[in-house]
Order: sequence, then C-alpha cells, then structure tokens
Amino acid sequence: MLSDIEIAQAAKIAPINEIATNLGLAPQEIEPYGHYMAKLDLKNRKNDPMTGKLVLVTSINPTPAGEGKSTVTVGLGDALTQAGKKTVIALREPSLGPVMGMKGGATGGGFSQVIPMDKINLHFTGDFHALTTAHNTLAALIDNHMYQGNTLRLDPRRILWKRVLDINDRALRHTTIGLGGPTSGIVREDGFDITVASELMAILTLATDLPDLKHRIEAIVVGYTYDKEPVTVAQLDVAGALTVLLKDAIKPNLVQTLAQTPVIMHGGPFANIAQGTNSVQATKAALQLGEIAVTEGGFGADLGAEKFLDIKVPKLGKAPSAVVIVATVRALKMHGGQAKSDLTTPNIAALTTGLANLGRHIQSMQRYDLPVVVAINEFSSDTPAELALIANYTQQFDVKAIPTDVWAKGGAGANALAAEVIKLTEKASQLRPLYASEDALTTKIEKIVTEIYGGSKVEYSPKALRELKTFAKYGWDKLPVVMAKTQYSLSDDAQALGAPRDFTIHIKTLVPKLGAGFIVALTGNILTMPGLPADPAANHIDLLPDGETITGLF
Amino acid sequence: MLSDIEIAQAAKIAPINEIATNLGLAPQEIEPYGHYMAKLDLKNRKNDPMTGKLVLVTSINPTPAGEGKSTVTVGLGDALTQAGKKTVIALREPSLGPVMGMKGGATGGGFSQVIPMDKINLHFTGDFHALTTAHNTLAALIDNHMYQGNTLRLDPRRILWKRVLDINDRALRHTTIGLGGPTSGIVREDGFDITVASELMAILTLATDLPDLKHRIEAIVVGYTYDKEPVTVAQLDVAGALTVLLKDAIKPNLVQTLAQTPVIMHGGPFANIAQGTNSVQATKAALQLGEIAVTEGGFGADLGAEKFLDIKVPKLGKAPSAVVIVATVRALKMHGGQAKSDLTTPNIAALTTGLANLGRHIQSMQRYDLPVVVAINEFSSDTPAELALIANYTQQFDVKAIPTDVWAKGGAGANALAAEVIKLTEKASQLRPLYASEDALTTKIEKIVTEIYGGSKVEYSPKALRELKTFAKYGWDKLPVVMAKTQYSLSDDAQALGAPRDFTIHIKTLVPKLGAGFIVALTGNILTMPGLPADPAANHIDLLPDGETITGLF
Repeated sequence: MLSDIEIAQAAKIAPINEIATNLGLAPQEIEPYGHYMAKLDLKNRKNDPMTGKLVLVTSINPTPAGEGKSTVTVGLGDALTQAGKKTVIALREPSLGPVMGMKGGATGGGFSQVIPMDKINLHFTGDFHALTTAHNTLAALIDNHMYQGNTLRLDPRRILWKRVLDINDRALRHTTIGLGGPTSGIVREDGFDITVASELMAILTLATDLPDLKHRIEAIVVGYTYDKEPVTVAQLDVAGALTVLLKDAIKPNLVQTLAQTPVIMHGGPFANIAQGTNSVQATKAALQLGEIAVTEGGFGADLGAEKFLDIKVPKLGKAPSAVVIVATVRALKMHGGQAKSDLTTPNIAALTTGLANLGRHIQSMQRYDLPVVVAINEFSSDTPAELALIANYTQQFDVKAIPTDVWAKGGAGANALAAEVIKLTEKASQLRPLYASEDALTTKIEKIVTEIYGGSKVEYSPKALRELKTFAKYGWDKLPVVMAKTQYSLSDDAQALGAPRDFTIHIKTLVPKLGAGFIVALTGNILTMPGLPADPAANHIDLLPDGETITGLF
Repeated sequence: MLSDIEIAQAAKIAPINEIATNLGLAPQEIEPYGHYMAKLDLKNRKNDPMTGKLVLVTSINPTPAGEGKSTVTVGLGDALTQAGKKTVIALREPSLGPVMGMKGGATGGGFSQVIPMDKINLHFTGDFHALTTAHNTLAALIDNHMYQGNTLRLDPRRILWKRVLDINDRALRHTTIGLGGPTSGIVREDGFDITVASELMAILTLATDLPDLKHRIEAIVVGYTYDKEPVTVAQLDVAGALTVLLKDAIKPNLVQTLAQTPVIMHGGPFANIAQGTNSVQATKAALQLGEIAVTEGGFGADLGAEKFLDIKVPKLGKAPSAVVIVATVRALKMHGGQAKSDLTTPNIAALTTGLANLGRHIQSMQRYDLPVVVAINEFSSDTPAELALIANYTQQFDVKAIPTDVWAKGGAGANALAAEVIKLTEKASQLRPLYASEDALTTKIEKIVTEIYGGSKVEYSPKALRELKTFAKYGWDKLPVVMAKTQYSLSDDAQALGAPRDFTIHIKTLVPKLGAGFIVALTGNILTMPGLPADPAANHIDLLPDGETITGLF
C-alpha cells in the first residue's frame, strides 16, 4: 500500500497560477510562494457577494480509531467538482509541532489529499511562523515594559500572555523566566503553549481585514495591574508593530487537491480553547469564488460545529446550507464499548449502543434547523449488516447515512454523498441560533450543555463564580463562549463515550479573550502544549540524497 | 529628509523573474516568493566554475557613531554595475529581533538599499523561522529523550543545546524548564539565544549542499552523558528530520538593490560566536553568475574579515581579490577619544589618534597578502582637512582612502571607489593563510591575537585549560577557532578604543561546535540574547489603513 506522501509525490500537480486563473482570479490577486502555493490578495473583492452555498463537515466525537473528517472533506470537494459544481474547499492549515510527534497529517489521506502535502505540513507560506513571532514579540514587550520601569504597574504574577512555539515540547509547559540577575529581567512564572493555541491565531482567523485585525489586537488583555485592573495591548501601544508582523499572514493561501480542486487553507485555531475553524476571510473567498464551499470544524460537532455556528457564522454573515457528519463503523463500535484492539470484529450490539453518539450530533445540528447527511467513511472491515444498521438508525431523524470510500477512490468514492449534499443545499434553510449575544454567560453555557451536549447541569468552581462577577463588571459577559472540553466525550469526562445522559459540566475557570472576542470556559485540564511520544515521527523522517524526496512524513 | 523605508517604497522595483533572467538563470532555477523575492535552486550549477572576482567589504571596529558598511557594500555594487561590470552582491539576511528593538536595518540605507526592505527585514522567505523551528525541534527531542527513559544517559545538567527565538527577549536568557510535575518533563536550567546565534545558522551558511548539511547536523554535540562523554545528533537519530525542516532554507534568496543590481541574501550567523558572513552557497553563486561578487563580513575586520578568511574561504575555495575597509571620520574621531555627543566638531588631534585603529586593520588584511582600499563613508560634517589627513595616513601602507557618498547618491557616490576596486581585482593576488589546520588550538588563537588584534599574550582560565585537554582527547583541536570577543575594541575590553598595544586576551571557556566545524573561544560575557530598549522600535512601527504602507520601520 502506498503511503500518503508517496501518493502525493506521484500526483500530477498543476501550477498554482493555473488553479488561480481557473478560479477567476486576476494576476495581481496571486502572490506565488514557489510554483504550487500562493497567497491571495483579495482586497478588491471585499464587497463581492458570497453567492456560493456553504457545506460544513463535522463528525462524531473522535476516537483513537480515526474518523477521517479531513479526508472526507477533500473527497467530497472533488466529488462535487466532478458533479459539475464549481467547488472550493476551505480548510485550516496544519500545525507543525504534531508532525514531528505522531503520524497523521491535516491534509487528508490516500487519494483525497491536499498538495503539496510536504510543504503544507512543514512551513507552508509561513503564517504560523509569523504568528509565533508576533506572539512572542508581544511577550518580550510585556517583560520589557516591566523591566524598564513598569509605568502601567503590571503585576508579574498576573500576566495572562504566555509564550508560544509550534513545537510539541512538554518541558516548556511550566517555566521560570527572568533568572540571571538584574540585567536579565524580572523573575516570574511563565510557560509556553503551542502556536495554534495563541489568541493571535483566533484573532487572525476571525478578522475581516487588517484594520479589524489591529483593532482586535489592541483589545487583547495581557494581564492585570497590582490593583487587578486589566491591561490591554492598546495601553502598551504596540498593536501597529504586531499588525505589521501579520501583514502577509492575514492573506489566505491557495493550494489544490490531488484532483486539482482549489483549496483555500488559512489559519488553524484549536477547537477546544478557540473556535477551531479556518479563517473568516478564507471561507468568505470560497463562497465568493465557488458555487459550493466545503469547510470543516475541528473535533466533533459538540466542539467544532457548535463554535462554527455560534462564533464564526455571525462574523462570516452566512450559515451552512448543509452539514455532513462523518462517522466510521469502527469509531461507533468504540463508542459502544468495543475494545480498540478488536475493532475489525463485527459487533452489532456495540454498534447499536455507539450509534447514540451519532444520534446526539444529528439532533444538535437539527437544533439549528440545518439539513444533515451522515457520511460513513468506509473501512474494509465494515460488514453490510453494520452499514445497513447505521442507515436504518438515521432514518428516524430523516437523515441519510451514505457510505463513502474517498481514501482509496478519491472523489469517485463520494458520488452518492455529493448528490445528497447538492440536494440538501438546494433546499431553503435558515439557521436558528442557539443563543443571543445579550444572554448572560451562564445562559449561553447552559444552552450549549443542555441542547448540544445532552447534559443536564452546569457547576461553577468558586474561582469561576468570582470571574463571572468580574467579567460582568467589565461588560465582557456579552461575548460568546468557547467551551474548552475534552473532544473525546460529549461530557467533560474523556472516558464517557457514547451518549452519556444527566451529566454535569464543571466550569473550573473563565479566561477573557477580548481580542478574539470570546470568553473561554475551561472544564478541566486542557493541554495547550502537547508532548512528543516515546518514538517520535522525527526519528523516521528523512530526506533522500536527491535533496527533494522526503520519506517518513505520514 | 526621506526615511529609508520611504525611499524604498518609492523605488521602481523590477519583477524578480526579470532580475533572475538578466542574471542568466533558467525558469526552473527560480522559485518566486511573491513578486519581488525568489529562492534559487542551483543544484545543476554545483560544478560550474567560480569565474568572478571576490570583493570583501569590512570595516574598522564599530562605534555608536555608525560606519555604514552595508550601505557602502550596496553602493559599491551599484557603482560596479554602472561601470559595466556584471556585479552580484552577496549579503547576510537581517535578524528580525533587533528590528523591533533599535532602529538600523541590515539592508543598507538612503539610496544604497536592498529591496523590498520591509519584507527582507521582517519574515523574508522564512529561512530564520525554519532555523528557529529546526533548532527548537532538536531541543524538544533532547528533553523528550531524557523524559522517555534516557537510554543515552544524557546529563540534564550538561546539555549544551539551548533554545532560540528571533526576538530580543532578555527575560529568556536564563530559565528553568520542565516544571509542573512528572508529566511535564525533567526540571533543569536552560535559556534562549537569538536565532542568529544558533549553531544551525552557522551550519546552514557553511554547508555546501543538503548531504553536507545533514552530515554536519549529525556531528552537533548536544550535551554530555553522566560519564561526561559527548552525545551527538547522530546518536539521537533525528538529523534527517532536521534536514527536512531546512530543505528550503538552504536555498539562497534573490532580491535587488534600488538600482536593480542583483543581491543574493542568505544566512546571517553572528560574527562573534560564529563566522559572521553570508552562506558559502550564496557567495559561490555570486561568483558563478557575476564578473564581480561583492560581499561583507560582520563587525570590524578583526572579527568579520578574520573569520571570513580563515573559516569561510577554505570552504568556499576562493579568496577575495580585494578588501574594502569602511571607515568614517566620525568613528575614527571616537576611536581617538572624542565624545559621541561632539562628533560633528572638527578635531584633527582625535582623528590622528583614532587612525591607528584603521591602520591596524589595514595591516591585518595585508598580513594575508590581500590588496586593500579604504572607503570613507562621508558625512556632511566631515571637513576637507580631515579627509585629507586620512588619505595621507593610508599612503604609508600603499593604500588609497577614497571618499564615498552612497547614502545620498547611490552608486554614483562610489565611482572612484569602484574604479580602484576594479584595478585591485585585476592584479594577481594569493591569500597567505594565517594558520594551518594542524596547528594546535593555542597556536591558532595566539596567531589571531598577535597578528590580527595586535595583542601580545593569551591567558587561559583553569576551565579553558581543562577544555583544551578534553578537546585534544576527542581530536577536536584540529578545527579552526571562532573568537568570541567584543566588536568594539581590538582587545577584549570594549572600552579600549583606537589601537591598544601589549594587551592580553583572556580565554574564559571553549565551546565545541562540531556541526559548524569550529571551536568557539569565549573571551568574556558575549550576549547571545539581546534585550529591548526603554523605547523599542515596536512602539513606532505601524501599518497605514491602506494595508500596505508600513511606517516607522527605520
């Protein structure tokens, strides 16, 4: 069997100028980065209408069995193109850190991939590097402010702005900095997150243009004074410099699938502590340029789709016309209690139990009044009885469950899915929002927990209760909420698979992200800096002596 | 008076494909990064002869008065082009960290600039970001190795490999990492250098091709075992992954001057703890493609030119045909004891004293049997008497001192200098090396101190003496030496301006850089992570609402 990178390297790749021209872009709108990637300068299209239909791909709660959401997204995009629809895929950019840790890229797989996958998975057009630099420049400016006299009276014990690297580096989670005596700063506790967890990443992906970007950067709360008053970037007077550092990163990137469907890849915020979707600008461009724009949200529908619909859609100004929920027989069996080591064994009982997870996500999406289709990402171990059981189960929701085989067949493996998606997008639909911005933070959280997760109660820690009061004082309670919760369960207990009921969600602390424009509600220990495994992928990646061929990269 | 960025923004810039085509490059050798920058893929020219003549621009010991070495380099390149010579300028890439700290870019100034200066001074083509990532990936892999069982028995107290950022961030000089309990690594002391201080930067700029790069990465000593045995990257088995991360960064970058002279910019290692010159590959390409290649070394001739001649030239396989030493009346007066606040006042006495600094550097370069010319970078406060005094002084060395005015006039300000440079390069010359590789480390250091610095003695700390023994045991004593010394003085005392005599150089410690292939001899506290000033440039940089025009960047 060929590896992903072998398939990608063997592909016929079109010059990016050709992809751009076919998409209707003018030469001055394309800035090439090598021959197969480009940045798009779309400032002249700011007021063009978003005439395309939006398709959101999401999934059941992820399991170690793998769902293949990106692969289905890419395969569906190719299938829609082959069905005669001018299709643009809008995706997140992958994070480099995990590439050196565990196998599994963010560019799809098999014959449903985005290329050039090696460049995209490594440095791409430098967006994440620019974000890392801007983020750490702000951190250095904060420490320098305190070192140079601290006129703002920033409390070194209450700095919210950590540092970031796009590296899986557990040793940097908790650090002490400023050691080495009076010429080397002020000693304080600090730590590093991975770059995708930076508020600047959330900001970049929500900003509608450069002035909006700068305005959002100004609003970032970097910490508190000794009097516990918030201090913003505007007070440090460095938003201009940070905006300059992100001047190119804010431009969306154009690449292509193996079948030469255009893909606009831009931004990659975490789906737990941020909104988990690609940029507003990229999705907008896809909707301006395509008849259909296919995009996705991170993790399962409880995290990714909820945030897409409640946070991104209001900024974008356009709702999905259809939602695709990706599931696999294997993962549903895991949700039904079957062991990971035994997933190729047919097990109707486990599948029956596990289907409740899929059902919960279908109901969540239908809560928004959106048309839904389930895509079963097929594995060779799936039996006809298992596939039939799923199709039968989803009928109760008036939803089709359609097998797809995009890994092996590319777009040809998703013809039936594409036909159903086209049908759904042609129906009129109107998003019914989950909450209103004037709802209290507690109301917003309660609605997410009860109507999306299927839980029954929310419990706040004493710290969170204090924060609710503080935030109300500053008027931050009108912002939307980003729930930071384990992706593996609908509840905040990662072990509770399937569709748990009558559970309580525990809010430990609330974090203001005023630049991004949301409040993060932490339900537990969310890891914002991953570690490397015992046998990191870095030990298997190599470059052949030709200087071009990379091996071991997925 | 226009600022550098205003002049740069008003310039007529040619599409980079045009510059490349005029240089004789084929379309497949050019990878565009936007419209005005490109990476060069020169693998098919590996064995082409270096037919051009090499001109090395260096300077007196730098002072806060400013010498303008890069500006003269660029102006000279334009003047040589205008004199009918096919000229290619080969420069280092600027570091981003200092851009946010102090004014003063690395792309020349006035009408002798490399453009697009904003992009070059910010992220350029991402080379430094790739180096930062590769460097920190190795750091994470080292900590992960210790965390995951430490089969190599690495001693966490003896890790040589720190982390890096391309940010001026003094608070990261000395850190404690791995805090937070058993799931977050092993607690140890650590610290960050600025990216240009990374051994990977030195390696990238000395590597002749990708296999050489990988081989050098394998040789890096990352630390010692509990038994004090060195541990290399080869033992960690991750050189392939690090090479993959530098696959594009190893390709030289093509840009242009305001007068459209081609500039190959690549690499930027520190001139104190590394070799301080642009890449071997870039200089080689300039010599293959041009009749004259103009390049420079960092800091004064004692640091930059010495390392260029003793470390880079043997790897490049070609020596300079002429050396240009840049000086200013102002800086020479400072070397002669005049106060910085008073440099516009004519002072023949101070100038007379200060000229000894220039004399020392002329003699150093003549020690290598190389033809020399002095370029006086003119300021409006210079008097005819002062200029005449310098010209008279250099006659004793049979060297011309030629006034240039490239900041205000571009290449037209260096016509006389260009004529002299052409004349010098037409003479036959043969570099006479300072030391042989089989010389002991102590002999190499002694020759540098006595024949280049004009000192009389070398003193080793007890630590350095122990290290000399250890290095001899491992056979590392056959490597060349990089002296890490203050750039402000010929001695190791930054206050000793002019041309001190009979001084002792104190070697505190020796550091093996086996990937780069040299031993660093530290003569004092060399700052490898700068800090930000009280009023950082970041507070003055901004982006106009047009989304294109950057203000306050120099």
